[in-house]
Amino acid sequence: GHSGQALIGNAYLEGTYSEIYPEFTQDEQGLTMLCRLFSFPGGTSSHVAPEVPGSINEGGELGYSLAHAYGAVLGNPDLIVACTIGDGEAETGPLATSWQANKFINPITDGVVIPILNLNGYKIANPTILARISEDELIKYFEGLGYKPYIVNGEDQIKMHELMSKTMDEVILNIKNIKNKANLTNDSSRPIWPMIILKTPKGWTGLKSYKDKNIEGTFRAHQVPGSTGGKVDDPKILEDWLKSYQVDELFDKNGTLVSYLKEMSPKGNKRMSANPYTNGGLLLKELIIPNYDPYTLKFNKHGEITNSDMSVLGEYIKEVVKLNKNFMIFGPDEAISNRLNVVFDVTKRKFNGTIFEYDELLSNEGQVIDSMLSEHVCQGMLEGYILTGRHGFFHSYEAFIRIIDSMASQHAKWLKMCSELSWRKDIASLNYILTSHCWQQDHNGYTHQDPGFLNHLISKKSEIVRIYLPFDANTLLSSFHHIIGTKNYINVIVASKHESPQWLTTEEAKIHCAKGVDIITWAS
Amino acid sequence: GHSGQALIGNAYLEGTYSEIYPEFTQDEQGLTMLCRLFSFPGGTSSHVAPEVPGSINEGGELGYSLAHAYGAVLGNPDLIVACTIGDGEAETGPLATSWQANKFINPITDGVVIPILNLNGYKIANPTILARISEDELIKYFEGLGYKPYIVNGEDQIKMHELMSKTMDEVILNIKNIKNKANLTNDSSRPIWPMIILKTPKGWTGLKSYKDKNIEGTFRAHQVPGSTGGKVDDPKILEDWLKSYQVDELFDKNGTLVSYLKEMSPKGNKRMSANPYTNGGLLLKELIIPNYDPYTLKFNKHGEITNSDMSVLGEYIKEVVKLNKNFMIFGPDEAISNRLNVVFDVTKRKFNGTIFEYDELLSNEGQVIDSMLSEHVCQGMLEGYILTGRHGFFHSYEAFIRIIDSMASQHAKWLKMCSELSWRKDIASLNYILTSHCWQQDHNGYTHQDPGFLNHLISKKSEIVRIYLPFDANTLLSSFHHIIGTKNYINVIVASKHESPQWLTTEEAKIHCAKGVDIITWAS
Ligand SMILES: Cc1ncc(C[n+]2csc(CCOP(=O)(O)OP(=O)(O)O)c2C)c(N)n1
Ligand SMILES: Cc1ncc(C[n+]2csc(CCOP(=O)(O)OP(=O)(O)O)c2C)c(N)n1
Repeated sequence: GHSGQALIGNAYLEGTYSEIYPEFTQDEQGLTMLCRLFSFPGGTSSHVAPEVPGSINEGGELGYSLAHAYGAVLGNPDLIVACTIGDGEAETGPLATSWQANKFINPITDGVVIPILNLNGYKIANPTILARISEDELIKYFEGLGYKPYIVNGEDQIKMHELMSKTMDEVILNIKNIKNKANLTNDSSRPIWPMIILKTPKGWTGLKSYKDKNIEGTFRAHQVPGSTGGKVDDPKILEDWLKSYQVDELFDKNGTLVSYLKEMSPKGNKRMSANPYTNGGLLLKELIIPNYDPYTLKFNKHGEITNSDMSVLGEYIKEVVKLNKNFMIFGPDEAISNRLNVVFDVTKRKFNGTIFEYDELLSNEGQVIDSMLSEHVCQGMLEGYILTGRHGFFHSYEAFIRIIDSMASQHAKWLKMCSELSWRKDIASLNYILTSHCWQQDHNGYTHQDPGFLNHLISKKSEIVRIYLPFDANTLLSSFHHIIGTKNYINVIVASKHESPQWLTTEEAKIHCAKGVDIITWAS
Repeated sequence: GHSGQALIGNAYLEGTYSEIYPEFTQDEQGLTMLCRLFSFPGGTSSHVAPEVPGSINEGGELGYSLAHAYGAVLGNPDLIVACTIGDGEAETGPLATSWQANKFINPITDGVVIPILNLNGYKIANPTILARISEDELIKYFEGLGYKPYIVNGEDQIKMHELMSKTMDEVILNIKNIKNKANLTNDSSRPIWPMIILKTPKGWTGLKSYKDKNIEGTFRAHQVPGSTGGKVDDPKILEDWLKSYQVDELFDKNGTLVSYLKEMSPKGNKRMSANPYTNGGLLLKELIIPNYDPYTLKFNKHGEITNSDMSVLGEYIKEVVKLNKNFMIFGPDEAISNRLNVVFDVTKRKFNGTIFEYDELLSNEGQVIDSMLSEHVCQGMLEGYILTGRHGFFHSYEAFIRIIDSMASQHAKWLKMCSELSWRKDIASLNYILTSHCWQQDHNGYTHQDPGFLNHLISKKSEIVRIYLPFDANTLLSSFHHIIGTKNYINVIVASKHESPQWLTTEEAKIHCAKGVDIITWAS
């Protein structure tokens, strides 16, 4: 989430930054501009953001990195995502439950996430909880979550580089062995995946101490040590600190990275900041969108028949799922409740916990992720999935989708900024179908009523957010058919799942939906 | 969260329900009405709700039980809260991180939460993750979270009653020993608290099977087995099932609970449904609210001086904290960032992870909970704290408070329903101070901008929600002084923490705030 400086810095050193933004030249002038504009109004963001090549998230709000990572590796068997997680971030609810997303990963058909917990011990002004429990508890916690923790612990930079590199090799080997074995034996049951606990001092290599207080290795290293109210106290201290990196040996006298270091970096798309998975539009395969006419309800008189709008839509979605392996459906244990039953004729619930023979519809392959009661994980995985160039939607109860209000906001920001960046390619829209809406809550009652997600999204720009309120099966079909073909939107459909009268014929529905706003004279 | 039927049923059997709602008599007529109105429009809720005696939460939205429980035991050393958690609920983000709230519990000054994970294996239509990992992983997970798990596992009702009762005795003994030892040795460092894993079949004692499918022990037991579209398929099956409870032996021929069973229930306030902690207003001690005049900024000319509004407020809050041991401040690692520094002159950050000598401001006693980066836990613990009759506020960044949008909605519902129930006594308002607001984000930028929490709350009724936008220190002081004295509201103050011009004198601020809306002629 955070750490704009690290990502921007590395993208610049790898050359990607200058390729995209040629004004940031690989010399003193470009380097100076890069530093000057960092975290400055009108300049570059202090957190990871769309402007930063190699990023797939509008950072700042902590908690979603791991769910994004798991979404990214779904259906990408050769992808390994190293996901760095702050020990502060690890305390958020969304992150704490995202560890369990390893229960959806199939060692044959999916990629692998290597979570790297940066246990630097502190957050803004406090120690972190994971740093203040026993090592025994720490290890058990991750083992309990289904991981094999590798600990990389120390302060000596050279030794730590070696140790980290060695550990990474081991971890990758471990992953390759797991995958090979799964492929050879055709056994895709859940393995124990590795994760890394990286124990380093907070503010490592930064100011050691300042005004008689330790900085490195304490919470005081958060943000800008040696400064007060945004101003550096003593430029000399800053200079000494920065010079301690031996900048003279790293850059030549034009301010260009010395060539032997430049050559160490991977080339082209192998650079993390140029990885096409982080500009998902590059990888996007267009969705095959079937005609929905065969799925509409046919009748002669308005209101003549009743049906469940969502059940009717389910038949169409089944066809979409069948035609597109890169289309996934996410929901918090509600696929059946939301009447998507027939979809299970052609796919399964993807789940890789223990599966018993008597289980229904579960399989470690499948295009529905429905077996985790977490709106956060559904949203985060869907984001990761579409940001890496795929398609899908999230279905949920209208009242409880508010749980991810803030995540939807951050994605809206992402889309808005991307629309201003020509190098960011179009990605599929983030689609919601909300059922159990507040006007059909006779059985669950007040606890399940809150239509406020629309109120939330309607305040965003119309170039980003689209809202659909289909009132019968045919308008629902038309709306859904439309949204899955759009790009770069957040689309919300509120739909009914209860048996109810059907109003518009196929043709009428098309005309109505094309209009957007309409007066239905015979009904008013 | 859920399970209205269990709570309503028990409240009725304990007599509390009839005491509060005399029309629900302890006879056939009352019992019939109780059943008829359950989960019916205009009747009783299907989930726990304010109308149910013994509840402290508007249920339905899962994920908050454990944070509420931990909030309730803060500062209540003799209180033991048994918190039942569905294994589905345990998958939500808020719940997954709430386990860590044991890092705030002081064995001398606080009460104890006994989390009871009801590992019944299923949620709506899926197995649960915790039921589909190895027992080794399950136990490590809870040990890693700092608990000692007690497993209660079985299907035989009589044996299970015995086992549960025995386990409860052990657990209580364990708790008493921990507390005694802590008191005797005056050592309040974090003990390993017990928790219970209760492994029972889902839908236990319900329909065994139906139409060749197992019901008991499967997800099919969720909601109303043997029914289609809200209607019972075969009344005979329902009748047999209900009769299997030997109702004739439990109720006399008037439909009144037989006396030997009635006598088994505790009396008066010892009944869970009559526990005064669940009607917190009964226990509320009025806050001592100091005069804020001594804390206002004094100046002669509008805009003459600058200051940080939040820093000025901090001095006043320090006084409130000093005068009121039943006042707590919650925030996600932001107390210093939000300029509450001086509050630490009189109290500490309450934290019961490992504390080192060089740590600042940490102690296992204190009125500030600031050491966990989770907006969900802050909100949940504050709710639990005020719902059991105490006072406090939650400070957070304006953009990220949206993380708890849905929790705020549920609390608003709670307050609205309570206002219609005369037996529910007034509780302190749920107060927010939001800083880092969207108009002062030059440094963090777009990632930290979202003023939508106000947009969210403004859609609630004005009898429930109040919003304050003080624009300098004196209006902030006046607003804060006002809100902490109110009851049954959700109050939101948006405040600035950055050095900025000061506009209104003490008297002007008072007049302005009393008006609510105002035209400041000299400034326009
Ligand atoms: C959801 C959320 N709440 C609060 C913040 C404010 N905040 C910014 S950084 C930070 C501490 C992060 O600590 P950690 O994840 O350990 O990262 P580190 O800086 O130590 O690498 C906090 C609380 C935030 N960014 N997001
Ligand atoms: C946040 C949220 N998301 C989804 C739902 C819909 N829902 C209602 S009950 C349920 C399953 C709960 O399972 P569990 O917690 O194991 O309780 P059980 O019924 O098995 O006792 C779900 C997903 C909800 N109530 N709250």
